[in-house]
Amino acid sequence: MILEDFQPIFHPRSVAIIGASSDPSKYGGRYYFAMKERCYSGKLYAVNPNASDIDGEKVYARVQDVPDDIDFAIVAVAAPYVVQSIADCAQKHVRAVQILTAGFSETGSPEGALWERQMADIARQNGIRIIGPNCFGVYSPESALTLLPGPDFPSEGGPIGVISQSGGVTSFLIRKAMGLGLRFSKVISYGNGCDLNELDFLSYLEADERTELVVAYIEGIRDGKRFLELTRKTSLKKPVCIWKGGLSGLGSRCVASHTASLGGSKQIWEGFFKQTGAIPATGVEEMLDLMIGLAHVPDFACRKLSVVGGGGAITVAAGDALDPYGISMLEFPLETQQAIRKYLAPSGNSVRNPVDVGTPVFLPFTLKPILEIVAGSDLVEAVIVEHWVTNFMPSFVQDLADVIPSVRDSSGKPFIVSLPGPCSSSDTIHIEETRWKYREWYLSQGIPVFETIQRAANVLGKILRYNDFLKGRKSA
Amino acid sequence: MILEDFQPIFHPRSVAIIGASSDPSKYGGRYYFAMKERCYSGKLYAVNPNASDIDGEKVYARVQDVPDDIDFAIVAVAAPYVVQSIADCAQKHVRAVQILTAGFSETGSPEGALWERQMADIARQNGIRIIGPNCFGVYSPESALTLLPGPDFPSEGGPIGVISQSGGVTSFLIRKAMGLGLRFSKVISYGNGCDLNELDFLSYLEADERTELVVAYIEGIRDGKRFLELTRKTSLKKPVCIWKGGLSGLGSRCVASHTASLGGSKQIWEGFFKQTGAIPATGVEEMLDLMIGLAHVPDFACRKLSVVGGGGAITVAAGDALDPYGISMLEFPLETQQAIRKYLAPSGNSVRNPVDVGTPVFLPFTLKPILEIVAGSDLVEAVIVEHWVTNFMPSFVQDLADVIPSVRDSSGKPFIVSLPGPCSSSDTIHIEETRWKYREWYLSQGIPVFETIQRAANVLGKILRYNDFLKGRKSA
Repeated sequence: MILEDFQPIFHPRSVAIIGASSDPSKYGGRYYFAMKERCYSGKLYAVNPNASDIDGEKVYARVQDVPDDIDFAIVAVAAPYVVQSIADCAQKHVRAVQILTAGFSETGSPEGALWERQMADIARQNGIRIIGPNCFGVYSPESALTLLPGPDFPSEGGPIGVISQSGGVTSFLIRKAMGLGLRFSKVISYGNGCDLNELDFLSYLEADERTELVVAYIEGIRDGKRFLELTRKTSLKKPVCIWKGGLSGLGSRCVASHTASLGGSKQIWEGFFKQTGAIPATGVEEMLDLMIGLAHVPDFACRKLSVVGGGGAITVAAGDALDPYGISMLEFPLETQQAIRKYLAPSGNSVRNPVDVGTPVFLPFTLKPILEIVAGSDLVEAVIVEHWVTNFMPSFVQDLADVIPSVRDSSGKPFIVSLPGPCSSSDTIHIEETRWKYREWYLSQGIPVFETIQRAANVLGKILRYNDFLKGRKSA
Repeated sequence: MILEDFQPIFHPRSVAIIGASSDPSKYGGRYYFAMKERCYSGKLYAVNPNASDIDGEKVYARVQDVPDDIDFAIVAVAAPYVVQSIADCAQKHVRAVQILTAGFSETGSPEGALWERQMADIARQNGIRIIGPNCFGVYSPESALTLLPGPDFPSEGGPIGVISQSGGVTSFLIRKAMGLGLRFSKVISYGNGCDLNELDFLSYLEADERTELVVAYIEGIRDGKRFLELTRKTSLKKPVCIWKGGLSGLGSRCVASHTASLGGSKQIWEGFFKQTGAIPATGVEEMLDLMIGLAHVPDFACRKLSVVGGGGAITVAAGDALDPYGISMLEFPLETQQAIRKYLAPSGNSVRNPVDVGTPVFLPFTLKPILEIVAGSDLVEAVIVEHWVTNFMPSFVQDLADVIPSVRDSSGKPFIVSLPGPCSSSDTIHIEETRWKYREWYLSQGIPVFETIQRAANVLGKILRYNDFLKGRKSA
């Protein structure tokens, strides 16, 4: 399948919602109102045999009654009526459908499995393509299509393409990503994947020029060999980050109840990651961390780092996290150490590299010259800075926020920030709010931000490994 | 050393601050004002040859001039003057000193190392005990002693004892723990540990009845064999959770700059954890998670769990995280499945166990009966619930918050909550605030709360493993 085949899915000129309802607590209703709210610019038709209008707009009993061609249909009727709806769509020459309804092979019932086979047969025989069933569908910011439940998802697009067998994961990722300034090209929750599946969507994202990074949550795959080849091919063009759910015996049994897929063993997947260059993630937290890193420092290939933080344990933690990736922190020559030392108390800190400035609450007028010396060193290719944000010293807030972007610009070297939150009580939520504002500021300046220095180190190590893979492949 | 020997450290009747100052930006000043603010009930004396009074209170030139016995002295003078201060303390028969000043063996300079040896010699020859140098000191809520920089640390005590070679780690742990309802018996930052070290403090916490849980950040140990024996002995009485920093080559080099300790290899420490029953942690995030788990479900020994969440991927993630610990989720018999199903939509969920209710935003009137059925099953020894908190439905907020404690009480089985935050933008901080309030509520009800289901599963698995260790040792 090539880009044009996906045109009716990601850029439909007309959409029918089968099972549309005036009740927003029903999927069909929620989806209908979400598309209205998001100002879908094509033609939108409501289909429901039990309603004549929704807020005064005409409702058609069957999709065949719609006096227009339909590119894309969204099916949200009860499970026993889905097969008939697909047959209707086929008769109407609808080009693709997305089935939100669940209750098929994932239930383990013979009836559910039969219905799912019947849908797939109709698709094959009529050239109609299916996304789902048992999915949240497609979020395509450009064309106002949205995943459940997201009427509030951003309408502007971005470079991240997502493929997921879990609607919950996609919806959580988009929601978290909103506040982190991350935006998407296409997000596809494909559930049971009875027709279109991970191979088709990965092919699309591989070819799609707007997608610069692919993120996938995969429970099971149909064709291991093809998936491996396609992942490798994609990895050579853009990073592919995969969280494989169900790698344990118990997790694998949970996969069966969720999307009726086959889990696959841990060893096989370890080999897969080595061969393809795909970047492994182990949960939503790490997927988000990788998205932040890959969005801002995709070319990270530095082996010589400096860590600047307040507290010796931070530098020890960074060392332990960086070491497995072959990243070092080289000891500064004495002149550099002395230059840094001028800005610090006589003791209670360390200037050898890593640099422990003694306190996590930084003063902008000492931090700036220190970072300039560190970033100016030939022994340093990139800098990780960890600091706290507090409300103790409001006058420093903006001055401090300016330091890192400014030294990054003047040095031309990547800066990465770890910004842990020292508060956890609702009484101190205002400090957390200030921290979130700092995070947004750094991200807006293209500086990736993480919750801990270990998570920062982990992401950098994985991006470095990916870029090593690219280099090896391209020179081979 | 036994409990009574530590009396002058943790419950001093009189304290001298050597290097006290009216300038709160200096350590000596900050410490002095912090003790005033925390209403230290013993006698407090300021010592400084360059000041005659602080806010009208008399300042003594030398500790020998104080017209009273001194139990405990806090030294915050510049590094070159520390040895003389300790000699003064010895002459005055001060029983113990805590040296905040840094600039000794951790700098790598021969002079610093010499000074540190001289202090240790004075301690040995005069029976005076030293905490530090290069440390944040002791936080003993009962006696108003506080670590740097904490004038705001809670004045009420609790069951957690902490030993740490990093002042930053202790200060971060206490600050985070404040909002999580966790309280401490004693927290000791001992830095370079030139006299009293991890062995002494662990002996104390082993014997101290108020300490029910020991948490340690260790960079290097002096006597591996004794530390192993003591950890094993302590583990048999109360859980000991250890984050060992500097396990990699690079991390180990950072340790040398931080506290001049020896790192030790990863393999050795893996064996250490197996033999001692100590629970390994890999960072502050995990230490806090373990503290939450061990504070609320220390006896967790369940192998048969149920997970109730909204979204199939959550249950898959839980399965993958629980499986390595030998924890299972047994499939419910059909009657149980049917009983649960009554409260759910006909599809888009799963009731086999784990239970996927289809959405992470729970309605209290369906959640309660479902949890009652789940917790009532003979196949379930404990329940993990994951849900989101939003501000969409304020009227449900309290009803929902009551459900889990109430079913926990009626079933008598442990409940554990995963409460992920779907927001990350400062515009939605009010939703985060509601989430933090839920977290505080659950914790106040004795229900541990984690950020993700994987982190919850990890903590439960480690506590289970610890309780298995106890059972094996006690029956042996």
